[in-house]
Amino acid sequence: MEKDRIDEVSKNPIASDDLLKRITELEARIETLEKKDDHLTMVLFSGDFDKAMAAFIIANGAIAMDMKVTIFATFWGLDILKKSSFSTAGRGFLEKMVLAMRPKGPGKLGTSKMNFGGIGPKLFKYMMKKKNVEQLESLINIALEQGVRIIACQMTVDLMGLKSSDLIDGLEPGGAGAFLASASHSNSTLFI
Amino acid sequence: MEKDRIDEVSKNPIASDDLLKRITELEARIETLEKKDDHLTMVLFSGDFDKAMAAFIIANGAIAMDMKVTIFATFWGLDILKKSSFSTAGRGFLEKMVLAMRPKGPGKLGTSKMNFGGIGPKLFKYMMKKKNVEQLESLINIALEQGVRIIACQMTVDLMGLKSSDLIDGLEPGGAGAFLASASHSNSTLFI
Amino acid sequence: MEKDRIDEVSKNPIASDDLLKRITELEARIETLEKKDDHLTMVLFSGDFDKAMAAFIIANGAIAMDMKVTIFATFWGLDILKKSSFSTAGRGFLEKMVLAMRPKGPGKLGTSKMNFGGIGPKLFKYMMKKKNVEQLESLINIALEQGVRIIACQMTVDLMGLKSSDLIDGLEPGGAGAFLASASHSNSTLFI
Repeated sequence: MEKDRIDEVSKNPIASDDLLKRITELEARIETLEKKDDHLTMVLFSGDFDKAMAAFIIANGAIAMDMKVTIFATFWGLDILKKSSFSTAGRGFLEKMVLAMRPKGPGKLGTSKMNFGGIGPKLFKYMMKKKNVEQLESLINIALEQGVRIIACQMTVDLMGLKSSDLIDGLEPGGAGAFLASASHSNSTLFI
Repeated sequence: MEKDRIDEVSKNPIASDDLLKRITELEARIETLEKKDDHLTMVLFSGDFDKAMAAFIIANGAIAMDMKVTIFATFWGLDILKKSSFSTAGRGFLEKMVLAMRPKGPGKLGTSKMNFGGIGPKLFKYMMKKKNVEQLESLINIALEQGVRIIACQMTVDLMGLKSSDLIDGLEPGGAGAFLASASHSNSTLFI
Repeated sequence: MEKDRIDEVSKNPIASDDLLKRITELEARIETLEKKDDHLTMVLFSGDFDKAMAAFIIANGAIAMDMKVTIFATFWGLDILKKSSFSTAGRGFLEKMVLAMRPKGPGKLGTSKMNFGGIGPKLFKYMMKKKNVEQLESLINIALEQGVRIIACQMTVDLMGLKSSDLIDGLEPGGAGAFLASASHSNSTLFI
């Protein structure tokens, strides 16, 4: 009987150290995948006031749920992150022209619908205040304070003739590669 | 020889119960991750007729492929889900004004391009009918009947002065948290 | 002592072949999940010049990082993929009208902001040239050459009265199902 037991075991030879290694490796790999559940990466392409509100409400909601958030601001999305005080002095003619036509920071954005020459955003801000919805500037500040990582697309910054000092503090310069790297560690990605 | 076999086994001592437990646990964890493949979560932010068409064609396509679908309707996306019959009676002045300017349900939406004061959507509906493409109202009804979960953003409902009874039946109230929870169980997320 | 060893082993009977099979299966399943990290699927709904630029910069960035990219072009997104030479001869009246009003290929697109009757895109192209940013036509060609898979939404092609020969070469016809299948094998999905 003893022999039978031994036979049974030896018929199924396990290289147990190897098995253990494989299981430990599997656990590490699955943990990496699971970690993505807690990471959200957004492209903030649009510079519309309402879309910016949506992006930062989602970002701050995610932070409140202990998630990590990365925002890649590109094209018009950079309008949201401009200092209200920046001047276009010292830029080329075209850059001056383009910059002069773009809103300067979250206080000057239009809405994607019902903008009516800027009345739309004012109306929304009034209604938001009445209903105690946090204002956009506060949402952005809270996001940065809570560790939301905001990458300012360097190609757009260059293309629009912007300088990093035109943008609010706490941003990180980066390109499509930085966005893609972040996206590949995120379960959820949004293009806003 | 018998001794050698025993030696080989005992040189590689496996706490087999523990191993089994770890493997069973890994299988459960990977199943959770794989389940996400069958789940799609969309933010329906835009109230454009054409984007709504795209959202509900994707939703119904996913349902046909046995996927689970969650739509988080927010901002202008709620226009798509309004009853055509609702009146603005009993709201404040601003709410009345904003509501009066917004389309009332899927039959009144504009297109994101070529709207031409509402001729665009009429043209599309005519062309869609000719080519046997399902109309938006039907797509929404089918989606709800087939179990697509539609969350109406409570913050927007409040902000716009809407009541749940202004919206079609079968919706679920919720906030950014409900969207994020659904997104974290979904492989695919879209912001439309 | 020999007996003890045997006892210990036999107290924890492992069907080792079964265990090995389960571990091997787990490794295959996790590899499938990990492969998704390297796959990006985009819906290209918008026909705006700036959004098309963003989509193809992201696509080519992903290819440079050894990722697989699938673009599902639908609705106005097909404008980006039209040959500049196509004529509307032989279509119905409505189709002719709609096609006549839509831009013909990447050289004729408007921007989502600051279009100014077509001056916007010209301005951008000039600024892009000055800053050595690749032009849209090149970005599309590079994408196709590098193996980006572009699916042209058959429903839109039919709806708009387009023919496959109106679109640039190298596209693949497909529907929402093709998009969803690709999305379910992708870690990142974007609706642009």
